[in-house]
Amino acid sequence: MTTLHDPTVRSFASDNYSGVHPEVLAAIAAANDGHQIAYGEDVYTERLQQVFARHFGEEAQAFPVFNGTGANVTGLQSMLPRWGAVVAASTAHINVDEGGAPEKVAGIKILNVPTDDGKLTPELVDREAWGWGDEHRAQPLVVSITQSTELGTLYTPDEIRALADHAHARGMRLHLDGARLSNAAAALDLPIRAFTKDAGVDLVSAGGTKNGALAAEAIVVLDLAASQGLPYLRKLNMQLSSKMRFVSAQLIALYEGDLYLRNARHANAMAARLRAAVEAGLADGSISGVRFSQPTQANGVFATLPDGVADELRESFRFYDWDASKNEVRWMCSFDTSESDVDAFVAALSRLTTARA
Amino acid sequence: MTTLHDPTVRSFASDNYSGVHPEVLAAIAAANDGHQIAYGEDVYTERLQQVFARHFGEEAQAFPVFNGTGANVTGLQSMLPRWGAVVAASTAHINVDEGGAPEKVAGIKILNVPTDDGKLTPELVDREAWGWGDEHRAQPLVVSITQSTELGTLYTPDEIRALADHAHARGMRLHLDGARLSNAAAALDLPIRAFTKDAGVDLVSAGGTKNGALAAEAIVVLDLAASQGLPYLRKLNMQLSSKMRFVSAQLIALYEGDLYLRNARHANAMAARLRAAVEAGLADGSISGVRFSQPTQANGVFATLPDGVADELRESFRFYDWDASKNEVRWMCSFDTSESDVDAFVAALSRLTTARA
Amino acid sequence: MTTLHDPTVRSFASDNYSGVHPEVLAAIAAANDGHQIAYGEDVYTERLQQVFARHFGEEAQAFPVFNGTGANVTGLQSMLPRWGAVVAASTAHINVDEGGAPEKVAGIKILNVPTDDGKLTPELVDREAWGWGDEHRAQPLVVSITQSTELGTLYTPDEIRALADHAHARGMRLHLDGARLSNAAAALDLPIRAFTKDAGVDLVSAGGTKNGALAAEAIVVLDLAASQGLPYLRKLNMQLSSKMRFVSAQLIALYEGDLYLRNARHANAMAARLRAAVEAGLADGSISGVRFSQPTQANGVFATLPDGVADELRESFRFYDWDASKNEVRWMCSFDTSESDVDAFVAALSRLTTARA
Amino acid sequence: MTTLHDPTVRSFASDNYSGVHPEVLAAIAAANDGHQIAYGEDVYTERLQQVFARHFGEEAQAFPVFNGTGANVTGLQSMLPRWGAVVAASTAHINVDEGGAPEKVAGIKILNVPTDDGKLTPELVDREAWGWGDEHRAQPLVVSITQSTELGTLYTPDEIRALADHAHARGMRLHLDGARLSNAAAALDLPIRAFTKDAGVDLVSAGGTKNGALAAEAIVVLDLAASQGLPYLRKLNMQLSSKMRFVSAQLIALYEGDLYLRNARHANAMAARLRAAVEAGLADGSISGVRFSQPTQANGVFATLPDGVADELRESFRFYDWDASKNEVRWMCSFDTSESDVDAFVAALSRLTTARA
Repeated sequence: MTTLHDPTVRSFASDNYSGVHPEVLAAIAAANDGHQIAYGEDVYTERLQQVFARHFGEEAQAFPVFNGTGANVTGLQSMLPRWGAVVAASTAHINVDEGGAPEKVAGIKILNVPTDDGKLTPELVDREAWGWGDEHRAQPLVVSITQSTELGTLYTPDEIRALADHAHARGMRLHLDGARLSNAAAALDLPIRAFTKDAGVDLVSAGGTKNGALAAEAIVVLDLAASQGLPYLRKLNMQLSSKMRFVSAQLIALYEGDLYLRNARHANAMAARLRAAVEAGLADGSISGVRFSQPTQANGVFATLPDGVADELRESFRFYDWDASKNEVRWMCSFDTSESDVDAFVAALSRLTTARA
Repeated sequence: MTTLHDPTVRSFASDNYSGVHPEVLAAIAAANDGHQIAYGEDVYTERLQQVFARHFGEEAQAFPVFNGTGANVTGLQSMLPRWGAVVAASTAHINVDEGGAPEKVAGIKILNVPTDDGKLTPELVDREAWGWGDEHRAQPLVVSITQSTELGTLYTPDEIRALADHAHARGMRLHLDGARLSNAAAALDLPIRAFTKDAGVDLVSAGGTKNGALAAEAIVVLDLAASQGLPYLRKLNMQLSSKMRFVSAQLIALYEGDLYLRNARHANAMAARLRAAVEAGLADGSISGVRFSQPTQANGVFATLPDGVADELRESFRFYDWDASKNEVRWMCSFDTSESDVDAFVAALSRLTTARA
Repeated sequence: MTTLHDPTVRSFASDNYSGVHPEVLAAIAAANDGHQIAYGEDVYTERLQQVFARHFGEEAQAFPVFNGTGANVTGLQSMLPRWGAVVAASTAHINVDEGGAPEKVAGIKILNVPTDDGKLTPELVDREAWGWGDEHRAQPLVVSITQSTELGTLYTPDEIRALADHAHARGMRLHLDGARLSNAAAALDLPIRAFTKDAGVDLVSAGGTKNGALAAEAIVVLDLAASQGLPYLRKLNMQLSSKMRFVSAQLIALYEGDLYLRNARHANAMAARLRAAVEAGLADGSISGVRFSQPTQANGVFATLPDGVADELRESFRFYDWDASKNEVRWMCSFDTSESDVDAFVAALSRLTTARA
Repeated sequence: MTTLHDPTVRSFASDNYSGVHPEVLAAIAAANDGHQIAYGEDVYTERLQQVFARHFGEEAQAFPVFNGTGANVTGLQSMLPRWGAVVAASTAHINVDEGGAPEKVAGIKILNVPTDDGKLTPELVDREAWGWGDEHRAQPLVVSITQSTELGTLYTPDEIRALADHAHARGMRLHLDGARLSNAAAALDLPIRAFTKDAGVDLVSAGGTKNGALAAEAIVVLDLAASQGLPYLRKLNMQLSSKMRFVSAQLIALYEGDLYLRNARHANAMAARLRAAVEAGLADGSISGVRFSQPTQANGVFATLPDGVADELRESFRFYDWDASKNEVRWMCSFDTSESDVDAFVAALSRLTTARA
């Protein structure tokens, strides 16, 4: 097969527009050849347990899956009886970006709560965490948070601990959607376990794809009492890879050494560079009319633009509208975003906003 | 990541114990670097449509997914209303090997029919194809066949055409589980379309993983009127890969040229070699007590063994019991099975059965 | 069986705390004896079609079911593909009182919108009605309203027409949860069809139980193009009564003559009497500290009470807290609420609030 | 509402073609008037617990529901994790007559086994009871039997005990579909508990409707460890009656005294009378060509008829074809079948078969 695309073109649309990090590709190749038992009884999946034990505690059990929706839905389903519900921010990926998979595949009602910054608090949780024992209400038994959030913000370990304590005191469990777990670890400059296991999280959807894998995520159970039947649920939810060695190899490549951190630090740094350059432009007048709508704490930058700028800017660089009614856009940086990508982007933004002003 | 396994060891357990064909790995690398639109709007997925149009007809639409269960369940769901049922052989993968995913994820009732050889006939279909309009009966609206079958047997194009005509005459559709589609094409020495599109099949689960891919299958709609909502169903069934270019690249690697055929022909040839060697051994007395329980028409060999032989043989070579109550075993050959693998296996079988006799 | 309860005690808790209206019981007896075809092919169900045709238009098709949740979930499911979502007020019964049945049984995502008074408007619908064609979003294809609402308020026919036009212009359908349809007809003093069929509603959950039936509701399809497969869905959702003649007889008893109106007018009048008496008490000082939190347009009265009053009042009369955080309560009147019940209740409220003041 | 049908006409189609026994109607009336807490916290539902404790043991918990499909599906769902399967006879109502509700609502895979007489045995169970721990197989965790069976046959208490012991020894539970539980009690002349609680059954679907109720069944949990979450599941499966006092009153009317037995004995006696009369006719030549295809142990008679007789006989009496390919029919007797109904039916059969011979 020949290369059909221009491998030098990059965008600010999503960290999953990127390809595969070379070390991940090399890991796939290293796991190749010969026969390994299918469906997870291979030596790579076994090794992955040890790798994740270092990040998530000795008790942790990892279940590699294909994608983040599969990790979230299957993980949450394992935490809930059929009558269960999940309290989540209204901006949570499980609420708005998974095509209704939690409801449609797993029968999970999502009790969603509006937030300013994509982050739940105990007070916000309490808006929907009530009604236990009343069969007329889907039972709120799990709180789900995203770290780093869909709005590019971060929970501190203390904030997560407060949510975990709050949930546990009410008989609820805490799920963490870690599609961008590595970006959080890099931004907080903390071991992953500081804001997962040690902060009371019960089950993590651990991301790989957005940080340089081809297609690899894992459901990681931190408290074994919080989850039931994952081997069965992963299979019946169609997330059990036959050649699982290759899914596990990708995750080993990321998490055994520091590749997860290197990739995430780079992506975060590019977002910081982008924000700093725009702020500088606003200060010196080379950019006008741009306002940041969220703090930039990980690898995403959220801003509102003057009318018409988004579409013109997109002629050169792909990115997403976030809330078109407010001219709000999202710019994501990835492990392969280069400094020159950022600089070219800021230059274009400068041209478009000053031309307009 | 370092190699943890012995890449020279191979088994006869399953074609998914194999790794990835080097040309498939190369295709993944060729599709790497730079940014591509996520979730299927990339150039590789676009190219795949053209590749599959050659095999399945110009109208065909392909939806790459992660695995065979995902292809079968999502494809069948797209062919059925919520009140639908599928008529299938009792040995069908969808009935016995998918953890209840068709029922549990898609709410599909499987009306299964016992067969001798894993193959449906119009007469067998009629055992369960009745009761349309009666709301007390899940409505049989799809017939599902597997080619090559779970028992290593093959449908001729005429047999498939008869099933298609029979189904269509009753308002039903025909689904083909093609996890081993390539093995069928190789064995029949026919273009794929001869026993799919041209034989009246409406939707195919086109396999890649068992024939040398890492994790790549596709739902291919041959008659667009037979399927509804696949873009939505694929997402909500958690089978939508964000970096889909790599799934598509694997399938292109297999199906654009003749790699699908080369791999399948080799696997089939190894099964034929295995069978022939055992038959020769039985004839010359160097093997005893082995009986073949199915014809060997693709890459699987089914046989019954003398008591105790299976477990002893498994000390050297992994393979599966098929029906332990009859000492029936399954030996699968793969694209990477070597002649010396087969010869060593037959030699071991000879030692064990003659020692015992 | 002997009577175990005191049949003179009535509450203000819910219109389903009531028993069965004598005319409904008589209708059940009139339909008894002899054999009738089970599962809906009886003469009473046939007659019901004619009765409902008068209320909902000649094209209307009625599917009797056991209860309101069954009517709502099954009716909505018939209006939606598997990838569908419903836009509803956050206070809608389907969102908060059905134990997650829409999500868990029918896989329906509810896109809920906060309202002041339980009523959607086109503007409120638009907060969630977007994203068609994007497989990452459960597709908003139905708007669901409740008439009279869960907050005791009413839509005018014009308001419903505006919602229907708005929905239809976007390819969406309009569902009306009419558990208290009769209360709306009585309050508006209009034929049912004025605010259903003639206002553009596509499918109605027509209530019986809250207005004097034992257990009888109906899914009524007003636009046949809006709904698919109801005979099958009703059966598989376990809402198909074998002795359906008795469900239909209850609905005939209510809707053939004017019993539905008589019962609803009475219930509404008792709510008006209750409100007027409390207002008078507030005016003359015999009641203090009570504030009405919603208009009283049908048979429910919503008010906030001084601290502690609700629990003391409940020692004599059952009723529900609506929002305990605000001391908000709901008082429902029923077809069998008597003037003396209301007067005794108001007298108790007077004693408790003036004692406290 | 006026009576629309001829209340003197009866059929042999199904025991649910009958109406309501007068004592059941009287019980509904006795429970009427005044207010009772909705959704099951009424005094009749409380009394029902005591009534059922006498039949099913002190530990028994009863959950009244609307219909048999609701009882079976909800009861089984409460016994199974999401990955569970049920072993049942291929003729089981849950397998063939519930529109796929077990699969579609509850995600239950039914592993069905062909039988001669609608009865499972430990050996038949073992055909599908295997594969525990293998996530590729829906896990067989419940055995479901029907008493009396769909073929009019009976299990002895010893046969049920053997199935219970067999199931329990394998970590499985035993469910009994008792839609015709009373017919079994009458036929065996044993207390219900002799073949349920005392025979090791874990959960019963206890029937009312086919034995003279309007619409009333109950899920009765005999071993509390065998079932989880029924209050929630009943609600979310849309089987929670708001005015539950009336469902409970129907069941009390049947089961508090001996009405269940009187009705069932009568129905059984009418079936016996029918069979005896046909046998006598065959012996004396006044009937010809009829063969009984099942023993007549409860209230159903199964027979094959000469070509054409079924349709001619149906001009006077409704009944069902059972297996049209064999001219096999089912004749059901009910609590209201009269001796003269039977005699007229046999006379017609005599006329038609001798005219033909």
